[in-house]
Amino acid sequence: MSLRSVRDDFPGLLTAEGKPWHYLDTAATAQKPQAVIDATVRAMGADYATVHRGVYARSADMTLAYEAARRTIAGFVGAPEHELVFTRGATEAINLVAHAWGNTHLKAGDRVLLSTLEHHANIIPWQLLRDRVGIEIDVCPLTRDGLIDLVAAEQILTPAHKLVSLAHVSNVLGSMLHVEHAVALARAVGAKVLIDGCQAVPRLSIDVAALGADFYVFSAHKIYGPTGIGALWARAEILESMPPWHGGGAMIDRVTFEKTTYAPPPARFEAGTPAIIEAIGFAAAVDYVKALGVEKIAAHEMALTAQARDELRRLNSVTVFGPEESAGIVSFALDGVHPHDLGTILDEEGVAIRAGHHCAQPLMDWLGVPATARASFGVYSDESDIAALLRGIERTKRIFG
Amino acid sequence: MSLRSVRDDFPGLLTAEGKPWHYLDTAATAQKPQAVIDATVRAMGADYATVHRGVYARSADMTLAYEAARRTIAGFVGAPEHELVFTRGATEAINLVAHAWGNTHLKAGDRVLLSTLEHHANIIPWQLLRDRVGIEIDVCPLTRDGLIDLVAAEQILTPAHKLVSLAHVSNVLGSMLHVEHAVALARAVGAKVLIDGCQAVPRLSIDVAALGADFYVFSAHKIYGPTGIGALWARAEILESMPPWHGGGAMIDRVTFEKTTYAPPPARFEAGTPAIIEAIGFAAAVDYVKALGVEKIAAHEMALTAQARDELRRLNSVTVFGPEESAGIVSFALDGVHPHDLGTILDEEGVAIRAGHHCAQPLMDWLGVPATARASFGVYSDESDIAALLRGIERTKRIFG
Repeated sequence: MSLRSVRDDFPGLLTAEGKPWHYLDTAATAQKPQAVIDATVRAMGADYATVHRGVYARSADMTLAYEAARRTIAGFVGAPEHELVFTRGATEAINLVAHAWGNTHLKAGDRVLLSTLEHHANIIPWQLLRDRVGIEIDVCPLTRDGLIDLVAAEQILTPAHKLVSLAHVSNVLGSMLHVEHAVALARAVGAKVLIDGCQAVPRLSIDVAALGADFYVFSAHKIYGPTGIGALWARAEILESMPPWHGGGAMIDRVTFEKTTYAPPPARFEAGTPAIIEAIGFAAAVDYVKALGVEKIAAHEMALTAQARDELRRLNSVTVFGPEESAGIVSFALDGVHPHDLGTILDEEGVAIRAGHHCAQPLMDWLGVPATARASFGVYSDESDIAALLRGIERTKRIFG
Repeated sequence: MSLRSVRDDFPGLLTAEGKPWHYLDTAATAQKPQAVIDATVRAMGADYATVHRGVYARSADMTLAYEAARRTIAGFVGAPEHELVFTRGATEAINLVAHAWGNTHLKAGDRVLLSTLEHHANIIPWQLLRDRVGIEIDVCPLTRDGLIDLVAAEQILTPAHKLVSLAHVSNVLGSMLHVEHAVALARAVGAKVLIDGCQAVPRLSIDVAALGADFYVFSAHKIYGPTGIGALWARAEILESMPPWHGGGAMIDRVTFEKTTYAPPPARFEAGTPAIIEAIGFAAAVDYVKALGVEKIAAHEMALTAQARDELRRLNSVTVFGPEESAGIVSFALDGVHPHDLGTILDEEGVAIRAGHHCAQPLMDWLGVPATARASFGVYSDESDIAALLRGIERTKRIFG
């Protein structure tokens, strides 16, 4: 992969002064390549029409494009198109499962297993389900270096567990879950498995069939696509077993005030005019990533992460969190400097990191810190970003020293 | 308003051959002006960053832009910004009210009043609520010309009615509700009022304070903005009384596995990374409409609608539905020709209408037809569109004659 040419694909990677911006916040949201912007412009302009309803050719064409986008995105994670539901993002996808599947299939006393490193989006929907139906939540601990401890998971799991819901890649530590192993443990007690793939889909090759889970969720904006759209993959028979959640146009078969019958999935779960433009942009982002090659991206980001971990550790006032082998994300702390102050000084140097709890407060409690500094990589990241980060840290040390 | 220059603002209004496209499906979705496309391109490129979290300047700037968009859109309908929740669209906004407000404040035996002309998005969420909590649904009939019959509504309403939920403008007939009157009737029995403003916000001047309702919902894509975003306005004290619906990042105060506390509205209802780019585009669309002047747009569309009704009626094989005074939308039937066939032939003439049930099957039952042909107008519509429609109908008559 020619990194220089990839950087040039992203108009967001320049500062207001036209200088290279060292964007190390891709785990929060990825910058967009020109190909995605161009697809968006066409979908909003010359190609624009509604879907599924128009009797004129442009609407029929847009419907084909919208469904082709579904096929592209489903295929990218190894799924057939009828098993992919468009949502606003991964967060809504988990909420959809918690409501439409959870309300239907879980009851008081059933248990759900999460882990200490989950993003709030994979905690709160289950707490809200707990409030609704009386499930119990168990929390799988982490190994000392920040992996979900599957040995502990095996000890915790019982036939009362109906769902295991875990992050594929930690958004704070980059820890990678061995999904097949987690699925095997869940299967042994008859539990279903939901995988939060937000941070995995942009940086690992995903095949939901091989992974063996039941639900897999991800967001477009983290894989170089638009905001406002994401996806839920679930096995067809599970989607079939779920009643509608949102009611509205496009998800019905026949409506009277007495009784309404519903469309089959995925339409059943896509009430109202969908995010048409965003679906087209999402598919363009997936096409962009496929053209680069997901394996190449994975290798590229792993190498940068390993290098960053090594070089950060060499600065002896820096603590690096998480496992050695991590996917594109590294969290760290600089002794005596709050991550926010570090982030602010780095910003002056043209380096953008994230500082905060990363929507993972229980993990912060486990790390024993209120916040971490986090650098995360994307297809456009390179050694110059790491060098700029290190220079900025050195400067911060001088200011605070 | 110079119509010619307005048409030039919309790159979607040309056919693939570069000829003028007679787009008469604006009630389904509006074309986008270049100003909205340009704002989207900037937000996806040079300005792109996440909101509410970043410690770097571009993220802080994007947060300001996102919240300024909320202020612009809220102000456009006469509301303070803290009373406006971003949703995926009007459909999700109604579902949010049905869940977060309905589950909390309604109980078995409580009644909700809808009308015969409601869009499915304002029927099915209440049927799903009926399934959840046991409410009863009443249906306000229509006057002979297709207005919601508020004399009948007064007869139906009782203290058991906790909510009246009605369309401001019918998406099929263009019928306009006298909202203040409906609100007074609801207030007399202590009911809250939700107004589906999807078709009203693009074509009437809206002041939620003056209308006096409790909830008002609308979609960006119908007011020349992006897909994937819409808005719920509700009074602050009502939003305060609603528990969260979707759980995730950005809607919390403090998260532990034992107990989570939530942010105040509107953040409480915006879990996950929001539709950042779409919010910027939505505000650009509102700015575009404000610059043209909503009153001018209203007068322009009313005049076109009146003209279209007159000229359609003059073709003596055409039945025109709905009230004489209607907002930008006219439904009709051509004797002996299915609306879909009419739509297909019109498409060959470069005229795009909608043919179908318009997500309003109960209204089709009331009209006694399976479908209607519908022409709907926008800021860019003009007499040439009506002339093309009439030419196409004449040709259809010759083909079917």
